[in-house]
Amino acid sequence: MTADASAPTLWWERPDLCYRGGDLHLAGVNLARAAWAAGTPSYFYSGERVRANLARVRAALDSTGLRTSVRYAMKANRCAPLLTWMKMSGLCGIDACSPEELRLAVSCGFSEGQVSYTATSVSDADLDALARHPDTWINADSLSMIRRLGERCPGRAIGIRVNPALGVGYGTNELLRYSGDRVSKFGIYRDQFDEALRLAKAHGLRVEGIHFHVGCGYLTDQLPAWRAVLDECLWFLGRLDNPRIVNIGGGLGVPHVATDQPLDLTRWAGAIRDAFHDRGVEVWVEPGDYIVKDAGVLVLQVNTVERKRNTLFYGVDGGFNLAIEPAFYKLPCEPVPARLARADAWTAGPRPKATIAGNINEALDLWAEDVAIPEMAEGDLLVLLNAGGYAASMASNHCMRGRSTETLLLP
Amino acid sequence: MTADASAPTLWWERPDLCYRGGDLHLAGVNLARAAWAAGTPSYFYSGERVRANLARVRAALDSTGLRTSVRYAMKANRCAPLLTWMKMSGLCGIDACSPEELRLAVSCGFSEGQVSYTATSVSDADLDALARHPDTWINADSLSMIRRLGERCPGRAIGIRVNPALGVGYGTNELLRYSGDRVSKFGIYRDQFDEALRLAKAHGLRVEGIHFHVGCGYLTDQLPAWRAVLDECLWFLGRLDNPRIVNIGGGLGVPHVATDQPLDLTRWAGAIRDAFHDRGVEVWVEPGDYIVKDAGVLVLQVNTVERKRNTLFYGVDGGFNLAIEPAFYKLPCEPVPARLARADAWTAGPRPKATIAGNINEALDLWAEDVAIPEMAEGDLLVLLNAGGYAASMASNHCMRGRSTETLLLP
Repeated sequence: MTADASAPTLWWERPDLCYRGGDLHLAGVNLARAAWAAGTPSYFYSGERVRANLARVRAALDSTGLRTSVRYAMKANRCAPLLTWMKMSGLCGIDACSPEELRLAVSCGFSEGQVSYTATSVSDADLDALARHPDTWINADSLSMIRRLGERCPGRAIGIRVNPALGVGYGTNELLRYSGDRVSKFGIYRDQFDEALRLAKAHGLRVEGIHFHVGCGYLTDQLPAWRAVLDECLWFLGRLDNPRIVNIGGGLGVPHVATDQPLDLTRWAGAIRDAFHDRGVEVWVEPGDYIVKDAGVLVLQVNTVERKRNTLFYGVDGGFNLAIEPAFYKLPCEPVPARLARADAWTAGPRPKATIAGNINEALDLWAEDVAIPEMAEGDLLVLLNAGGYAASMASNHCMRGRSTETLLLP
Repeated sequence: MTADASAPTLWWERPDLCYRGGDLHLAGVNLARAAWAAGTPSYFYSGERVRANLARVRAALDSTGLRTSVRYAMKANRCAPLLTWMKMSGLCGIDACSPEELRLAVSCGFSEGQVSYTATSVSDADLDALARHPDTWINADSLSMIRRLGERCPGRAIGIRVNPALGVGYGTNELLRYSGDRVSKFGIYRDQFDEALRLAKAHGLRVEGIHFHVGCGYLTDQLPAWRAVLDECLWFLGRLDNPRIVNIGGGLGVPHVATDQPLDLTRWAGAIRDAFHDRGVEVWVEPGDYIVKDAGVLVLQVNTVERKRNTLFYGVDGGFNLAIEPAFYKLPCEPVPARLARADAWTAGPRPKATIAGNINEALDLWAEDVAIPEMAEGDLLVLLNAGGYAASMASNHCMRGRSTETLLLP
């Protein structure tokens, strides 16, 4: 199959996600047809796109000449078939943030040693579970966790999550800043780091790495701020007797709107090389969204087309409980028709602006407001792009509208 | 058991929710002890408080001299034992907003006729399910729904959800406004109401009621605005040939902070009587939060006590995925210790301010910031008040931290 001669015309189109003969295809699959079989709401994930995203990060890391490891942050999308696909790719390990995630990763084929663990407000029960996975690398987030981990696992090599008191995130979204002026719950600040090292030693732990994660969704514009974070973290690294691992966290973003530019991985890798080339450490990175977000879509059916006052509403059979980022984080999922009524549907103008409304009885349950998409009719299928990350993994059964399917598309 | 002589001293305390001998009790149950047995995170709901809340609304409605019906909005809390308890109380029916909710209500003992249905963006599959429940009262939300319902159920008596273009909500929280200046997805506005009536008639539907719901969490201060909504809705009612039912929706709020005053139900009922006393209609009301919110708590365990820079953090073993209103809706769940280390823990000063942090790897996962609660230690249990509504029913398994228990406390 080849794309239409006129394509790609839309900012999000790419060879594996584009219209062919008027039908939106992902990974060679006609989404309208696949959703007709699966029923709606249905998530579809492209295994090949996930692998390509992983390979792009791996290639960038390889260009640094450093020893590196990708640990996919499975909280972004824990669809079991997808985890196994990632394992089989050989391109990544896993970062888990709860014992249940750790167990799921192992159940999907990853070895304990391929899973690292970075969590916060860790309970004794969590630590008891971690003690039963001696090959899993643990990043400790607090003095309390160091003490309680040391009591359970003396002699274990660990990392310490540090807080550089600098943040970076998508645009100006405060919800996505993890570190910065406001004191955050994550990691250990400079003023307590030596105490943390003493405490670890006193409890027989060997601190051989540091970890930090300072924000989500950063793109090229945020790289200078992110570079400053790396520099700040060298201070922490310099305090270790035997530094082996620097985990630079995740947060690598993807474009959400037409004006976003993709993250420049060459510059990103250059910053990593510059910061760590003479430190003798292995660099780990924990991307989540960057790997899965643009590999997934959520397909819904339009059941109501209605103008109310000056607003054209397309009502669909799924709501914000299935993908909460648009409603709560103000991160859009671009809505597009699965099938175009006419070949020039995206270019013929003017298109009436429409608001996409979900089926939850809450006013905030709108997928998008005043968007100029091609006209749709009741019964048509609507595709929400960028629904591969922090969508199904955060879904709830609010209003008992949580039923959905997930499908991994493989070659 | 009786409360301590000095109690109640805290704004939220009441005879069935207060400290006794230093232990917080709900419905006569020692919460620390109950949570020790159930494990944490655990929700507890007081059946008696639910019944008392229902009885208070019923008494207020009875004072109007009108025929009235309470339809509990089960989306607030669908814990099955609680639904059956409500059914047995004889004080209410149910308002459902999805076929799955309707089926759950019936499975818990309510008859079809005791369940009404008010939803938005309703699919054909939803309507097919409703057609199999001919005794359930349906409120139609759009012209599209009227048309498609008429095709399936000619002759059926229905209500129409109307949009009075006036809103009311808790404080100034825009997320909780359902109607107002901005065009909302809900209901039919004045300019299309006659068309809706014609369409219903053309499809053999008998429009015998109107429904509206214009916001959540209103308290006494918002009653004048709410009264204006009732007046506006009389216009719609006046257009019906045979008006039988006015459903005034839900939205009755409960206090969230010390400065909130409880809703004055006498004034509330007075407004209902004034609006409808000469209309010959039955008045239905759909409270959700008002019935369940202050009847429920969420108990978590403190696992981390740590000062980071100038902030004292209490880390707990549950996060915002278990009750999302504090993080996303800015509706607080007051945090209090399950057990007081000393009798004067709440009155002895000064108490250090603390931030309660959940165990989800997101910066926004804070239960409360800078609150002056009694000092707590690792292992102590923390109780989040007002967790009876829109908490468990909206919970997700984000980070696979969704495991919890729900317990209905009965006499």
